[in-house]
Amino acid sequence: MTLPAEAIWTLLAAVRARRPLVHNITNFVVMNNSANALLALGASPAMIHSSDEVEDFVAISQAVVINIGTLYSEQIAACKLAAAKARAVGVPWILDPVGAGATPYRRAAAGALARLEPSVIRGNGSEIITLAEQTQAGSGRGVDSSHRSEAALGAARQLAMDTRAVVAITGAVDYVTDGHRVAAIENGHPLMTRVTGLGCSATAVIGAFLAVERDPFAATVAGLAVFGVAGEIAATGSAGPGTLQVALLDALYALEETTFVKACRCRTIAP
Amino acid sequence: MTLPAEAIWTLLAAVRARRPLVHNITNFVVMNNSANALLALGASPAMIHSSDEVEDFVAISQAVVINIGTLYSEQIAACKLAAAKARAVGVPWILDPVGAGATPYRRAAAGALARLEPSVIRGNGSEIITLAEQTQAGSGRGVDSSHRSEAALGAARQLAMDTRAVVAITGAVDYVTDGHRVAAIENGHPLMTRVTGLGCSATAVIGAFLAVERDPFAATVAGLAVFGVAGEIAATGSAGPGTLQVALLDALYALEETTFVKACRCRTIAP
Amino acid sequence: MTLPAEAIWTLLAAVRARRPLVHNITNFVVMNNSANALLALGASPAMIHSSDEVEDFVAISQAVVINIGTLYSEQIAACKLAAAKARAVGVPWILDPVGAGATPYRRAAAGALARLEPSVIRGNGSEIITLAEQTQAGSGRGVDSSHRSEAALGAARQLAMDTRAVVAITGAVDYVTDGHRVAAIENGHPLMTRVTGLGCSATAVIGAFLAVERDPFAATVAGLAVFGVAGEIAATGSAGPGTLQVALLDALYALEETTFVKACRCRTIAP
Repeated sequence: MTLPAEAIWTLLAAVRARRPLVHNITNFVVMNNSANALLALGASPAMIHSSDEVEDFVAISQAVVINIGTLYSEQIAACKLAAAKARAVGVPWILDPVGAGATPYRRAAAGALARLEPSVIRGNGSEIITLAEQTQAGSGRGVDSSHRSEAALGAARQLAMDTRAVVAITGAVDYVTDGHRVAAIENGHPLMTRVTGLGCSATAVIGAFLAVERDPFAATVAGLAVFGVAGEIAATGSAGPGTLQVALLDALYALEETTFVKACRCRTIAP
Repeated sequence: MTLPAEAIWTLLAAVRARRPLVHNITNFVVMNNSANALLALGASPAMIHSSDEVEDFVAISQAVVINIGTLYSEQIAACKLAAAKARAVGVPWILDPVGAGATPYRRAAAGALARLEPSVIRGNGSEIITLAEQTQAGSGRGVDSSHRSEAALGAARQLAMDTRAVVAITGAVDYVTDGHRVAAIENGHPLMTRVTGLGCSATAVIGAFLAVERDPFAATVAGLAVFGVAGEIAATGSAGPGTLQVALLDALYALEETTFVKACRCRTIAP
Repeated sequence: MTLPAEAIWTLLAAVRARRPLVHNITNFVVMNNSANALLALGASPAMIHSSDEVEDFVAISQAVVINIGTLYSEQIAACKLAAAKARAVGVPWILDPVGAGATPYRRAAAGALARLEPSVIRGNGSEIITLAEQTQAGSGRGVDSSHRSEAALGAARQLAMDTRAVVAITGAVDYVTDGHRVAAIENGHPLMTRVTGLGCSATAVIGAFLAVERDPFAATVAGLAVFGVAGEIAATGSAGPGTLQVALLDALYALEETTFVKACRCRTIAP
């Protein structure tokens, strides 16, 4: 295993100790949840989205999270400024291309951002396939909205090579690749799909790990493993998605090493 | 009874089986809650509000929800585009005229949207009375903010006839009318008024039923009955509005046929 | 003690009885929470932020809350209109200068609003120190982001004298000053710092007290004491920040006089 559970735990301990400032430009549906997930984890979130200040704020942040869920034109401009600034000052950033394939507008915005050198891109299978097509000129494959994460792995590897980002596909099994290495994380619970924006929270959590780990592949595996284990703990005994959403924050906050190490199911697929 | 509880249950089963895509242009206060209510119910929500993509997204949706809670000028433009597109492509849409009477700006926006042929309009008594005045030239009746839903029923019937929409007034008792038929739903719980945006969630839930039932009168009665029963279940044993909000999502998710049929209190008033 | 617990309770009883309309122009992260805190307390919240209607809405409100968390240029304009209108019509308003020192843009916006005669300004230590520098020309003291509330008290007194607002610094101990009088409130719980936007909720709650009490010093002490006691009750037995957030709304809703009077820890420091 390239990244043992104990090594992941060390990264979580670093997040808790250093409380990195994570700058989020994210959608209006999940702003509260993403901030709370980061606080529960031990990071320090900020939700700042005006073009008048994103560059200044990126410069004092340890990681940047860009999520296009509730896209509008001023936000695209702010995201581009933030992404460019992040690369200029060496702050890692992660892209969440929510609903990338749903409309031409969204597809174009996601594609443009993917070309601005994110450290990581995290999406579901359909989003990653759409983005792989966007960044590769002339591709004409069809896209539907129910790709399983396994089926999208080929697209993820291609996208990783085209953009030089680590690419994560989340689903029943999560896959992480840098185009060469591939890891699978088998944590999480089906009830998590009944809570809005948990994919967005996972992206934010990866952002916190990017702030304490220079290898984005390791940071992404760690973020998804911690988030998945917390989700499993939260789902146990939850009466439904309302309870799960609340219990997930408690689980992120209260997670202990022995529990995590026992529950973590990461494995290396390649090379 | 025009719509027996068993028939309502069949519609809920259809929502759960088909997972209709419900496009919401809604306010920033309730975006998370509305999305979670739809997910808990079994539908597939999307919150998309930019004029650059709402028409494209309406075209792939099964129902559209338009809510003016946190109104601003770009949003009015987007709502009008979405409403027009919905009618053009035959997708049912529902209007929630939040706070319609509070300011001239809001009154004008709600009135303009009501004239764009919504399938359903859902509001509280004051909102429906305001809207009835807006859509009927020259009316000069006074409006205050504490109309009981019973008292607004006359305005609702008139609004339904003026707009050809089904009109729902929610309150201690909910009323639904198409100008001729009138149904009353006596589910729900007083503690629900202490949670922000549950009216907006009810509107979103009706949207999901519009996606599976062509008669908007039946869809509206069904949506309000299911939401009201879930609210009653959630209120039982809740220590306050915080717990209620969480338990409501669990109840929408876990609702079973025998429980629902026993608790449902819909009746036909007219004709 | 300038404000005994029994006097605070009388103000809470007035909020519950009169259900004042509290107009919030606040950030997207906390809109739902702030509205729910106000509803749980017994007030009637509205979240209205368009320049096209804020002045009309201020005129029918009993208090206004302005919070710059997720700032953007249209919002600054709306906040200025609302603040000016509030003073013109005699409606008290409270400023929450979220992250005032983080960027030049934010510092300027907070400073400009502080000069528009708020009744109360509530922030953490760093925000209050930043604002004290902004409103006092030529000051060059450094600011960092971890000032303890005690250390910021001098800045708060100066800011209160410069702006004629009551200034509250919240932290492990909360301080309230009008430049002369100083009160300390020792309620609250450390876990509250792990939930996003509870400072913003405290500001909103003070807004409700401003609607029923003409002395902004008394209203601010009362709001912070009630919020702090509710937070303590909520923290007791909470498994983490998720549960705390929910339990806080329940506690605000269910708070009883004997519990409050016993738990309230306010004291006068000066004069």
